[in-house]
Amino acid sequence: VILTVTLNAALDITYGLERVAWNSVNRVDAVDVRAGGKGVNVARVLHALDVDAVVTGLAGGATGAELRAELARAGLRDELVTIAGETRRTVVIAARNGSETTLFNEPGPQVSMEEWRAFEERFRNLVAGAEAVVLSGSLPPGVPLGAYASLGAAAGSPVVLDADGEALRLGLDARPAVVKPNADELGRATGLAVSNLEEIAAAADSVLEAGAQAAVVSLGAEGLLACTRDGHWRARPAQRVEGNATGAGDAATAALVLGLVRGQTWPERLLHAAALSAAAVASPVAGEFDRELYERLLEDVVVEAL
Amino acid sequence: VILTVTLNAALDITYGLERVAWNSVNRVDAVDVRAGGKGVNVARVLHALDVDAVVTGLAGGATGAELRAELARAGLRDELVTIAGETRRTVVIAARNGSETTLFNEPGPQVSMEEWRAFEERFRNLVAGAEAVVLSGSLPPGVPLGAYASLGAAAGSPVVLDADGEALRLGLDARPAVVKPNADELGRATGLAVSNLEEIAAAADSVLEAGAQAAVVSLGAEGLLACTRDGHWRARPAQRVEGNATGAGDAATAALVLGLVRGQTWPERLLHAAALSAAAVASPVAGEFDRELYERLLEDVVVEAL
Repeated sequence: VILTVTLNAALDITYGLERVAWNSVNRVDAVDVRAGGKGVNVARVLHALDVDAVVTGLAGGATGAELRAELARAGLRDELVTIAGETRRTVVIAARNGSETTLFNEPGPQVSMEEWRAFEERFRNLVAGAEAVVLSGSLPPGVPLGAYASLGAAAGSPVVLDADGEALRLGLDARPAVVKPNADELGRATGLAVSNLEEIAAAADSVLEAGAQAAVVSLGAEGLLACTRDGHWRARPAQRVEGNATGAGDAATAALVLGLVRGQTWPERLLHAAALSAAAVASPVAGEFDRELYERLLEDVVVEAL
Repeated sequence: VILTVTLNAALDITYGLERVAWNSVNRVDAVDVRAGGKGVNVARVLHALDVDAVVTGLAGGATGAELRAELARAGLRDELVTIAGETRRTVVIAARNGSETTLFNEPGPQVSMEEWRAFEERFRNLVAGAEAVVLSGSLPPGVPLGAYASLGAAAGSPVVLDADGEALRLGLDARPAVVKPNADELGRATGLAVSNLEEIAAAADSVLEAGAQAAVVSLGAEGLLACTRDGHWRARPAQRVEGNATGAGDAATAALVLGLVRGQTWPERLLHAAALSAAAVASPVAGEFDRELYERLLEDVVVEAL
């Protein structure tokens, strides 16, 4: 079983409409409401691949209850810890007359020290039975900035870390098996320039020096770059996929943690991560992917050693 | 007690942020969540004026539960009938670097014939003890278009009707004591031109011929126009109030129903309706008003017979 941690889970609301009239009144014609947050999306992708995944993290209030009801409907195992605060919402405005989307993210709920300790205890119990752990996403207010370092240290099993800023930088102390930043996140965590592939590789190497065992950098439509102690590889889809990039990184994370527990080689892991990530772009909602496209892209992605 | 009916109640979510980055990711820094829908807003204003108000209508699902929890916190009496469908949300994006706001309205829930009959029965029980009834807002799918006509006919007490399109036009059959359209709604219900005050007055008179006992037309910042069987009056605030126009019409409706049960003269009713409406514009959220400004405007609003 793979344990996914989502400390700042969200109720993701997606509004579909033909076009948006800014500064006016819009009638939404399609509403999708689902449990979200990066770790939840990773678990959803793993579940779709018939891999046992457990969702833990923090959830509370009416929105937290709605999130948990949707997790149950989706058949995901819910080990979230209840908090007093209200789980945040995200609202995605998706106009069909263009590929652009506008996101509104609520701030996360305040977490008390007692709630954080209760989570740490739940995590220690769950991690004992896990083959690998995914630590994903932002930290809500009240959770220590070093949360991913302390959870990583408490995990006996290998950790995949997908975070930003200080949460990522401090998380390196726990020597995660894989970190999966995008180029901007890598730049923020290291303070280094990331304007071309060479700079990105150098910044990724500095993350390895700081403790990570491997860094896989997502490059958007340009694919993925893996910097590991065994070598550097790049994966690139042969075709560009149009769609909704939200959740593409989470699909890549799902493939990377799965490759880790299955003992795949780095080129195999990258192949699956790039194909699954592009297949997620083709799906309108985070946590889902186009299965047929995924199979097809497995033949098409080019992986090369650098 | 005044009974307010909100058949298409909504969970109103307001997002405050400095500026909006369209087609990008926005962090919201202020979140307000409250029970909404026109009738709920009317009840909230009445409650703030220390008048007993009862909220009835339809609510369901997780959003319905959240709406009812907020009604309870606000101290409003909840006589909503539970339906299987999910109460809709509205999301208001309010940027502080401009006075404009963007609204996203979800479609209303599907209502079954059994649910509608259950509501009619609840309404008949509640209306027996009411001094007046407010029928406000849109009809969710499944509710008959003639709903306001049949509810109005079943009500022994006088009715104030605030609706649009067919719901308003058909509702006139019940001979409401007051209808309160804005100029656009009046135009849609009558099919007449409403581009100047004379045309608006002529359209309002046609509404009286169709059954209404009085029509009060809201003219935005230009105040209110009352066409009654006793004469025509116009109320105009001496000063222009800047702010959020959402809920201003509901504040006017609250003043009009209160004037009705208190037996005020038409000039008195218009004075209060115009002052309360302008004081609601000064408040950032629907159902609230600036009390001090309300008192001040009662001295300032000019009411003239036409």
